[in-house]
This record gives sequence, C-alpha cells and structure tokens, in this order.
Amino acid sequence: MKIIRANLGERSYDIIIGRNLLNSAGKIIRKLNIGKDAFIITNTLIKNKHGQRISNSLKKAGLSVKFRLVPDTEKSKSIKVAFAIIRDISRYDRKRRIFIIALGGGVIGDIAGFVASIYKRGVPYVQVPTTLLAQIDSSIGGKTAVDLMQGKNLVGAFYQPRLILTDLSTLESLSPRQIRAGLSEAIKYGIIKDEALFKFIEKNYSEILKLNNKKMEFLVYRCSNIKAKIIERDEKEEKGIRTILNFGHTLGHAIEAASGFERCNHGEAVALGMLAAIDISKKKGLIAEGLYNRIKNLIKSAGLPLQIKKISILKVLKAHYRDKKFIGGLNRFVLIKGIGKPVIVTNIKLEIIKAALKKLKQPTEKF
Amino acid sequence: MKIIRANLGERSYDIIIGRNLLNSAGKIIRKLNIGKDAFIITNTLIKNKHGQRISNSLKKAGLSVKFRLVPDTEKSKSIKVAFAIIRDISRYDRKRRIFIIALGGGVIGDIAGFVASIYKRGVPYVQVPTTLLAQIDSSIGGKTAVDLMQGKNLVGAFYQPRLILTDLSTLESLSPRQIRAGLSEAIKYGIIKDEALFKFIEKNYSEILKLNNKKMEFLVYRCSNIKAKIIERDEKEEKGIRTILNFGHTLGHAIEAASGFERCNHGEAVALGMLAAIDISKKKGLIAEGLYNRIKNLIKSAGLPLQIKKISILKVLKAHYRDKKFIGGLNRFVLIKGIGKPVIVTNIKLEIIKAALKKLKQPTEKF
Repeated sequence: MKIIRANLGERSYDIIIGRNLLNSAGKIIRKLNIGKDAFIITNTLIKNKHGQRISNSLKKAGLSVKFRLVPDTEKSKSIKVAFAIIRDISRYDRKRRIFIIALGGGVIGDIAGFVASIYKRGVPYVQVPTTLLAQIDSSIGGKTAVDLMQGKNLVGAFYQPRLILTDLSTLESLSPRQIRAGLSEAIKYGIIKDEALFKFIEKNYSEILKLNNKKMEFLVYRCSNIKAKIIERDEKEEKGIRTILNFGHTLGHAIEAASGFERCNHGEAVALGMLAAIDISKKKGLIAEGLYNRIKNLIKSAGLPLQIKKISILKVLKAHYRDKKFIGGLNRFVLIKGIGKPVIVTNIKLEIIKAALKKLKQPTEKF
Repeated sequence: MKIIRANLGERSYDIIIGRNLLNSAGKIIRKLNIGKDAFIITNTLIKNKHGQRISNSLKKAGLSVKFRLVPDTEKSKSIKVAFAIIRDISRYDRKRRIFIIALGGGVIGDIAGFVASIYKRGVPYVQVPTTLLAQIDSSIGGKTAVDLMQGKNLVGAFYQPRLILTDLSTLESLSPRQIRAGLSEAIKYGIIKDEALFKFIEKNYSEILKLNNKKMEFLVYRCSNIKAKIIERDEKEEKGIRTILNFGHTLGHAIEAASGFERCNHGEAVALGMLAAIDISKKKGLIAEGLYNRIKNLIKSAGLPLQIKKISILKVLKAHYRDKKFIGGLNRFVLIKGIGKPVIVTNIKLEIIKAALKKLKQPTEKF
C-alpha cells in the first residue's frame, strides 16, 4: 500500500493505492468523519463487479449504503442526469449525514463529483476509481463536470474529494481496450514530465498490458504522484502549470466529441491528439523527426490508434473551435521541445491544425 | 462613496456603496480585468429601469454587453432556468472573454452567481444589487443557489463575486413592501450583532422607509460591513460563525416555502421567523418579556407582518423538516440571550416549534 498526500491546504487529502482496498473502504472512510450515510454513484456493470465488497465493508464499519446507478456512457455526463441524481439524493437525505462515493471510471467520477459540489453547496465525496484512466488521471485534482451539446465539460466545478481510494485489483476486470486507454494518459505524463517513466513504459508496456502487479503498481503510483504534485501547484488551472496536463487534449477532446464519445474513447482520442501535438511540435521546429518517431512508436506499441477513422475532420475542427481552452478567441496548444519539456503555444494557425488532422486520416506510414 | 473590503485571501473583493454608481460601472469593472464581454442577467422590469445606464457605461469603457432576462419570481431560481441560461451563454460565448453581471435582487443574484460558479468551472461575476435586501444581505458572501422542489437553495455553491457595486439610487424605484423586506434583514443584523444599529433603526425607521439618503447610506454601509466581517471569518459556514446570520431564517425559509414564495416574501418570512425565534428564546428562559416586546415592536414599526396568514402550520413544519440546516437529523436554531448575543441551539422539540408557529397564527395581542 502506498499513500500520496495531495497538499491543498484545508482541502488536502490522501490518495491510497493498493490491492483489495475495497475490503477496507469502510474502516478507512469512517476515520475521515465525513458522514454516516454513503450514497454510491456507479453503474450496473461496476456494481455487479465490486458493489458487494464495498457495501459489506462500509456496513461493517457502521455506515449506511445506498446505490444510485447511472448509464454507462459519456452521455450520462449530462445536466439532466446530474439533476435526476440530485433530486434522488434530496429525497433520500432526511435525517442523514450523507457523503457521496464515486465508484467507477472517469464519467462516474466527473458526474458524482459535480453532484457533490453543488448539492447543499457541497457535500464530502470519495473517489473510488476502477479504471486505469480514472486511477491515474480523472479522479485526482477535483475537476468535476458534465457536458453540454456545445462541448465537453462545459459545466462543472473545482471540488476536491476527501479521499481517493485506488484499488489496483479492480483493474483486473477491465477490457484490454480500457487498459490501453489508461496507458495513453500514462504515456502523456512521461512525455510532459518524466523521462524515466516514459522509458519505463517503453520497456514494460507488454507486461503492463498483461496487468503485471508490480509494474502496474509502479505505473499508477508514479502517474498519480505527478498529477498530485502538479495540481498542488496550480489547483484551479490559473497559473499555467496545470495546463501542461492538457497535452494531447486540445485536439483529443475535439476528436472524442466528433466521434460522438463512442467510436473513440478518451484515451484513444488523447493518443491521436498527442500525435497531432508532436506533429505540430515537429513542424514548429521544436522537436526532431527522431523523437517524433519514438513517441509514435510507443503509442503504437501500447496498441493505441494512429489513425482517425470514420470521423470527419470538419467535425473535429468545429468541436475544436468550441473548446473552452480558447481564451479570448485564441486557441492554446501544449507542445513539446523534448521529453519532459512542454511548451504552451497560443494561436496556432488553422492550416497547421488541419494538416496535422489530415495526416491522422492517412494510413500510417511505416517507420 | 464608501468601500468595504471583503478580505477572503485570493477571493477578496470590494463592496462599493454610493449613489449613481451604475454610471461608473464600466470604468470600475474594466479596472478589474475580468473579461471584455458582459453577460448581464436581469429581468424585464429592472432592465427597463436601469439597463440603459449600466449598458451605456460598460460600452463607453469598451466592454460588450448582452442581456439575458429571467422571469421575476422565486420560481426562476430553478435548475431548469439555470441551465437554459448556461446553454445561452455557451452559444453566445465564442471567441469572447465573458464575465457575468447579476443586475437585480436576491433571486437574480443567486441564480447568476450559481451560473457563474459552474459555467466552465467558474467565470468571474459582479453583483449589482438593486433591492435593499440584496444590497445588505444576499449579494454579499458568495452564497449562490437554486431551489429544488424538496427545498430552497438545495443546489448551489460558495462562489465569491469579483465586485459588489451597490448603487443606492436604485432603491428609489422599489415598492415600500420591498424596502420593508430589506429592513427586516437590517433588524436581524441589529439583533444578532449590533445594538447601536438596532437603536438606529428604532429611532429612524420612518425616515428609512421614506428613503432618506443619509439614513439609507448609513444603514446599507453598516449592514454590509457586518455581513462582510462575518463571512471573512467563516466563508463556507463551517465554523458556526456564519450560522448566526440564519437568525429568523430556520422557520423563515419554511414559512416562505409554505407560502409558495408568493404570499410571503423573504423579508416578511424572516420577520415571522424572528418572531418565532424570540418566542422560543423567551420560552427557553434566554430573554425576558421586555426584550421580546421591544423586538416585536420594531418589527411592527417597520411595517412587517406579525401574523402568518393563509399558510398552514402543517405545511410550514413539513418544509422545516426538509431544511438543509438539519445536521444528522437534528434541527438547529439561532436564538438570542440579548441584543447582539446570539446562541445556537440544536434539537428544539417539535411541540415548542409548533407552539411558536401557532402563536403566529393568532391575531396579534396588543402590547
């Protein structure tokens, strides 16, 4: 078991990483003294896999348990679903001391965190991420949100959890595609911040994909630590420090949105977004062909897509121009001038973006 | 012109109080550097009265202006209206640097603040309160919210404005009933915190109701200052300091809700809630008959109701038991043991609450 402390003043919390932690959830959460009645937001699939274990553990610790299921798609991240949940909580919450548990992947974490942030102007919540992507990325840092037709994550809040309980055993029930999606974000951390991590993934990707315990624990710990340290320095993305986490995300989000959040999952879209970002970095003379190929090679080894399929470039561009990362009409890209050397560049010209996207439409060249 | 600084660390802001400040809104807001495009949330009535002045001033300062009207009732404070506004903003907000202005009373301030708090995880907003109640109370302190069927203000956030611009001249277009509603909160400040203020109102209520400039400026400044100093010490109502502001509000909210937010306005409901609170304080032996009568007398002089009319006690009790001020099933009242001496008491018995409400149903005895 490893513990990372996210130091955010009065909003500080622990990220506890280990195997079979669901069985200790009750004991750990009771110590926080955040309430007596757990309202667990999850989906049917995850409840079937892990619901019994966490529920037993909470009840054993004297806490009451209520499950609220949401559909298992990005489409759950809507205002409509968020408010249906809030209505249910407010009906359930009589003479109780409610806290919320987000049991699931990024979608569950985002919507449950958002609900926690606005119900009664904020009730405590705990993240129990069950996907690799949620464990190393979305559960950490207090970004909560739901989507609008006009764009992803347009409505939300910065609202920190009181604990993140990262049970590595939950990864065993994921599909290989979900593991690869998480690995995409891990590669991102390597690229923007940690060459040793990048090399570790280059060396161990096949064992990671096979869920080797030791490798996976190292990966999750290292990535979680990077994210925690970045958000400590820039909790609300005001200082340009947290911005580097958006590497691959500017076009990634647009690709994901243009795919209707279905054909491409988040990690796959980020992989494509990273490819576009290194292509633009190369064209801007920031990196050489060799590094471009090295990164592309790792994305390929991780089994992530190199090509945008069945998604129109026009749709991607439209989604891109709706992105909230625009500031005063200027787009903003995280590019790199080397591994661990991100640079933020604003106002990249449309032709350059278009060319990078077009390249992703072409069948991949050999390298 | 008077300025109160609300010292809240990186969330600090000024409360500027004066006459005809709407004409300087553009100049003052531009200096804050919070955006270029003002999205003003208001209602038709207020826009007709003050829209032109603020709009001209903003445009003169080089800012763009867009009005979004909401209906003029507590019913606007719904999730539905909040999200209709957010959709409009997200459609409007292309290549812009948007900030929000809440131009109006408490309903407008609450909903505009809530919208600002969750759009793009928070955009800057400015409060321009145009009612006495909003100027001395609801605009200050960053409490934003919308109502649920299950209760008032059940969904919201603590989200501070970047400026409060309190133009005393806007009070001139209020109805006497609206002035009295504001005066109810002013009396509350006197009772919980400031005997000199209480005496000032006792002496000057008739001039205040006639909108005497000097008296009104003193009243608004003094009350705003009390509120600002309380929220500085307990921004998120976690330390039991801010709680005293709820004097008269525990049953006040319930009465307001039971009246459908129509027969009773907020200030009137708070007056009735204060009467119940001093009745309970008296019964608990905290205050003597003399003080009870003195306070009741001032509420009467202010032209506020002493009697609950056409509202069922059962409905009030039901609304009361849904109130979010319950913690773990225990109700919580702010009582007093003297002017400026609030005490927080939990778990007041149902019979005592019922008796206090029944007393409010009876025709007022002479005293």
